Amino acid sequence: MAPRKQQEIFDATLRLVAEKGYAGLTVEGVAERSGVNKTTIYRWWPSKAALLGAALVEADLLGFTAPDTGSLRGDLVALVEGVVRLLSEPPAADVAVAALGAAVEHPELDARRFFADRFAREREIFERAVRRGELKESVDPMLVVDLLAGAVWIRSVFRGVPLPDGFARDAVAAVLDGVG
Amino acid sequence: MAPRKQQEIFDATLRLVAEKGYAGLTVEGVAERSGVNKTTIYRWWPSKAALLGAALVEADLLGFTAPDTGSLRGDLVALVEGVVRLLSEPPAADVAVAALGAAVEHPELDARRFFADRFAREREIFERAVRRGELKESVDPMLVVDLLAGAVWIRSVFRGVPLPDGFARDAVAAVLDGVG
Repeated sequence: MAPRKQQEIFDATLRLVAEKGYAGLTVEGVAERSGVNKTTIYRWWPSKAALLGAALVEADLLGFTAPDTGSLRGDLVALVEGVVRLLSEPPAADVAVAALGAAVEHPELDARRFFADRFAREREIFERAVRRGELKESVDPMLVVDLLAGAVWIRSVFRGVPLPDGFARDAVAAVLDGVG
Repeated sequence: MAPRKQQEIFDATLRLVAEKGYAGLTVEGVAERSGVNKTTIYRWWPSKAALLGAALVEADLLGFTAPDTGSLRGDLVALVEGVVRLLSEPPAADVAVAALGAAVEHPELDARRFFADRFAREREIFERAVRRGELKESVDPMLVVDLLAGAVWIRSVFRGVPLPDGFARDAVAAVLDGVG
């Protein structure tokens, strides 16, 4: 399938889940909105769960590139700012929160690929920091990203409050410098 | 309503949402399982969202008492261990993850009360730590609990991987001592 057509399908998928929830997402609806034949979509993705799982990882709308600012602190602040945009600023937030929320209720919609794919790209931030001597090799990068991304999720999705100014900087300072 | 009857209603509510998802939760189903008349339930909680929101905060099954071990580190490790049990060990995890996941897709089911209620009780951990001289008063307690609870959520719910031994201790060490 042409990459542009594929992006139109992912885009339709994400917008439908944002508008109607996972229950309202159907391959028929995606076909209608993207103008691609339903049987063609089914040939590539055997279910709506598979389609939404692929959209989470491959849609340009949720595209992710690991920041490279020259310092670990700068990279992590940029990383957290990206998660803040993803989870609290439309249009990305409308689709990301709806799709990730659906993944909690519907395990067949496998969100693990989304997180594994992002983490594979986040790793380089930590590898560069170790090479620059900013970070001990024994530090677990997954723990660091889960602390930071998790704080954004809890604060903006569950508590439903706007993030205070400087949230990214403060969260990164807590994890890099410690609060104790 | 007698507190015991109320707990039976909350219990039925949480078990139904764990078994059938939010879409499958109905006040009728709760009435049937708890043996309480439907109109009585509606008199107390006007909708299934209100009922599940109340169950999240008031059900004994999800009961929460802030740990008091004598040190900030001990309290936070115990706090994280409690979140791990809540989000990854049945029976609490079955109901907590289903109910919180539903809250993402259905904002009318207000999860903010659940988080506000827990935070009101978590605060004392930090107040005691400040009095003992273990923590500067300028540290934001909500940032600390959101980092820690968020890491458990991402790791066990979204990544769907078992938490490694010592996860609570390592997560608390990262936030108290810093990784940088």
